[in-house]
Amino acid sequence: MNSKAIGRIWHLDGWRNGPLPQTDPRVDEPAVGGDSRTPQRVVPGIANLHSHAFQRAMAGMAESQTNREDSFWTWRETMYRFADRFTPESLYSVAAQLYAEMLEAGFTTVCEFHYLHHGPGGKPWPNPAAMSSALVEAAADVGIRMTLLPVLYMTGGFDGRPLEPRQQRFGHTVDGYLRLLDTLRTKENGRLRIGCALHSLRAVPAQAMREVLAALPTDSRVHIHIAEQLPEVEECLRLRGSRPVQWLLDHADVDERWTLVHATHLDDAELAAVARSGATVAICPTTEANLGDGLFRLRDYLEAGGRWGVGSDSNSSVSPVEELRWLEYGQRLVTRRRNIAVSAETPSVGETLLQGVLASASDSTGHRLDPVGPDMLVLDGDAPQFAGATEADVVDRWIFSGNRPLVRQAWVDGRCVVDGGRHTDADAIAARYRQTVAGLLAHER
Amino acid sequence: MNSKAIGRIWHLDGWRNGPLPQTDPRVDEPAVGGDSRTPQRVVPGIANLHSHAFQRAMAGMAESQTNREDSFWTWRETMYRFADRFTPESLYSVAAQLYAEMLEAGFTTVCEFHYLHHGPGGKPWPNPAAMSSALVEAAADVGIRMTLLPVLYMTGGFDGRPLEPRQQRFGHTVDGYLRLLDTLRTKENGRLRIGCALHSLRAVPAQAMREVLAALPTDSRVHIHIAEQLPEVEECLRLRGSRPVQWLLDHADVDERWTLVHATHLDDAELAAVARSGATVAICPTTEANLGDGLFRLRDYLEAGGRWGVGSDSNSSVSPVEELRWLEYGQRLVTRRRNIAVSAETPSVGETLLQGVLASASDSTGHRLDPVGPDMLVLDGDAPQFAGATEADVVDRWIFSGNRPLVRQAWVDGRCVVDGGRHTDADAIAARYRQTVAGLLAHER
Repeated sequence: MNSKAIGRIWHLDGWRNGPLPQTDPRVDEPAVGGDSRTPQRVVPGIANLHSHAFQRAMAGMAESQTNREDSFWTWRETMYRFADRFTPESLYSVAAQLYAEMLEAGFTTVCEFHYLHHGPGGKPWPNPAAMSSALVEAAADVGIRMTLLPVLYMTGGFDGRPLEPRQQRFGHTVDGYLRLLDTLRTKENGRLRIGCALHSLRAVPAQAMREVLAALPTDSRVHIHIAEQLPEVEECLRLRGSRPVQWLLDHADVDERWTLVHATHLDDAELAAVARSGATVAICPTTEANLGDGLFRLRDYLEAGGRWGVGSDSNSSVSPVEELRWLEYGQRLVTRRRNIAVSAETPSVGETLLQGVLASASDSTGHRLDPVGPDMLVLDGDAPQFAGATEADVVDRWIFSGNRPLVRQAWVDGRCVVDGGRHTDADAIAARYRQTVAGLLAHER
Repeated sequence: MNSKAIGRIWHLDGWRNGPLPQTDPRVDEPAVGGDSRTPQRVVPGIANLHSHAFQRAMAGMAESQTNREDSFWTWRETMYRFADRFTPESLYSVAAQLYAEMLEAGFTTVCEFHYLHHGPGGKPWPNPAAMSSALVEAAADVGIRMTLLPVLYMTGGFDGRPLEPRQQRFGHTVDGYLRLLDTLRTKENGRLRIGCALHSLRAVPAQAMREVLAALPTDSRVHIHIAEQLPEVEECLRLRGSRPVQWLLDHADVDERWTLVHATHLDDAELAAVARSGATVAICPTTEANLGDGLFRLRDYLEAGGRWGVGSDSNSSVSPVEELRWLEYGQRLVTRRRNIAVSAETPSVGETLLQGVLASASDSTGHRLDPVGPDMLVLDGDAPQFAGATEADVVDRWIFSGNRPLVRQAWVDGRCVVDGGRHTDADAIAARYRQTVAGLLAHER
């Protein structure tokens, strides 16, 4: 990782004459300006490499006794039932609230891994891109940078069985999928990129994968769920003769345009090969814990020089701070040591983690995300957590002092979208969200 | 666990005619009153069973490259250096900020495990109880209920070696310690109890433990650090012939007056015996992760009917929500299943966790903490996280929807100390804290 680029952050060379105001009218001293503590307060915006927006509305609703001894696979049943209620309007409303929360927490870009394409019974909406468009509009209205990753989802398992009724809202043929991408690409702009997502090896037959990859623009990003759960690894071994990550590496040109989501279960050879490939692993610590997936082998992967980022995935938590802290904490619990993500080149765990997510952000999202670019966070330098902080420890203080929101402002593409810790349109977005969720749940009960 | 007492919470029988205001002037509808959603918003205050207040000021300052491949034992060196700078004044200031944050997060009682007794070089302050008094005053001024647990700390290891120079600020003779307890007991009142803490088996010789326990009032609470780290278990085995928890059970009448802090490393016999004893285990998930201690065997312990609570310990995080969620998440990661803390008697994981901490609170703290008593939290029912929440899932929503602060009001002993999500004296407390920490760090640099 290149620590020079990060060092520049603290000097603010790229920002001092940029779009920032010289003073923040809501605070009693300049947020960015001449005082000596200023550089401690600004960090680059974080890219969220993996999100399923609609799942935010079910946070805390899959922890009940009926799901006792639950697993990922029974959680998925709850998720399917929930997914079945969404319309473009309700998806817009839930995504807007979620993206506002992401911005408030410090995520300035979101990769939306979007598979909820169709209406009830799998019938396409009159506009087949309606659900995608709802997400695009929510991101635009809320002001978060987006990489929309429409998902190709074709089969119900490695054996090629057809989708179950509950899965039919997700499904596409290869042709239909490529048409959707073509439609959506006309919407691309500086804050919106369209990429490609393969749901997983179990949901995309090998031939379809080849066809889609061959049809993509050469600079398209490709994201895929992989090796999240052991049963998936076992089924792939049984039916395709190798572990999923190995199979993917053998059957696709996996390089820096690729993002492997989860990759929780890697053997040594797979881990080394992924690290060599230049691909990014999108680790989702809070969701992987919520779903009982297991811990990514971060320590080994960092030693192999692998690239990685974080995602909030199911959005039961929405915070880069929690993702990064518990990524490190998981390793500490396993190794029974402290300070795992640190090396001779990186001054602290917090810096290592921040550099890690920044180093992969452009390749994974397809946006050019310069660490001194127009997406950034002004931390609340007056917060007790930063008392006496220096350049050397401000990031550690941010990540390792708890969960109180410490982002005062978030700027995306030169626009201030969070001020005083709140999204500039927070009240209206929340009011709409509450109404939407009440409606979704009325449907349930 | 008795779920009847918890059920009553939602009906608010104990509160409807109690000290609560009928309306909260800051919100657009009654916080507690007639509308149908009201019961969903009130939960009992949570007891924090283990805190070292001064360590809050070093949050995020022990994650640097100099601590690479760090462990609990090298972290302890940093902590010792930091501890050495505290005076009664600075301890008051740090504790006040911490306790205000605890209240804002939902902890309404704190058990302060206090070992930082003396001045530089181990010289007692002119008032030997000065440091204890600073903590007591901070708690009283901020309005948190406290169980002060002055710590007996005598030796540097199981072999009885004398304290190292850096440890001499913590030390007491048995007589000096009992005098300190006598002095402090004169301060007891409805919001302050004085208990006893034995630092650990390695710091308290067997004979001293017997003398102190024999001298305590029969209803005194006793807390002890135990089996946090494997080297401690190994040293105890080598020098005392049994594992620390087994040794303690064999040499003291461990019952419901006792709280075992951590108890991370239990064998099957110890786990069953602790569960039978009636003692509470104070689990500190965020600190145990930060220090790489390991995961408490919650699943087995719940099955054995054991009693437990949570503590914020080093206070690198200050949130019952994070402690409870990651207590459950740690078990999910180990078992690769979901919803571990749930049973036929408890409707959800959130309820199980809440009932667990409530069931042990009185015995562990020595206060009579009725779940429908005067310590309680009014959650922010308008928050998007609670949209459409019911009695059945409001606690799950609180714990499993992330980290955004959802406590609108905190009431302790009938006094409203947090309103609108902030401590009623937050600004003045924070200003003093910032000044204090800057001074502590100036000393460092």
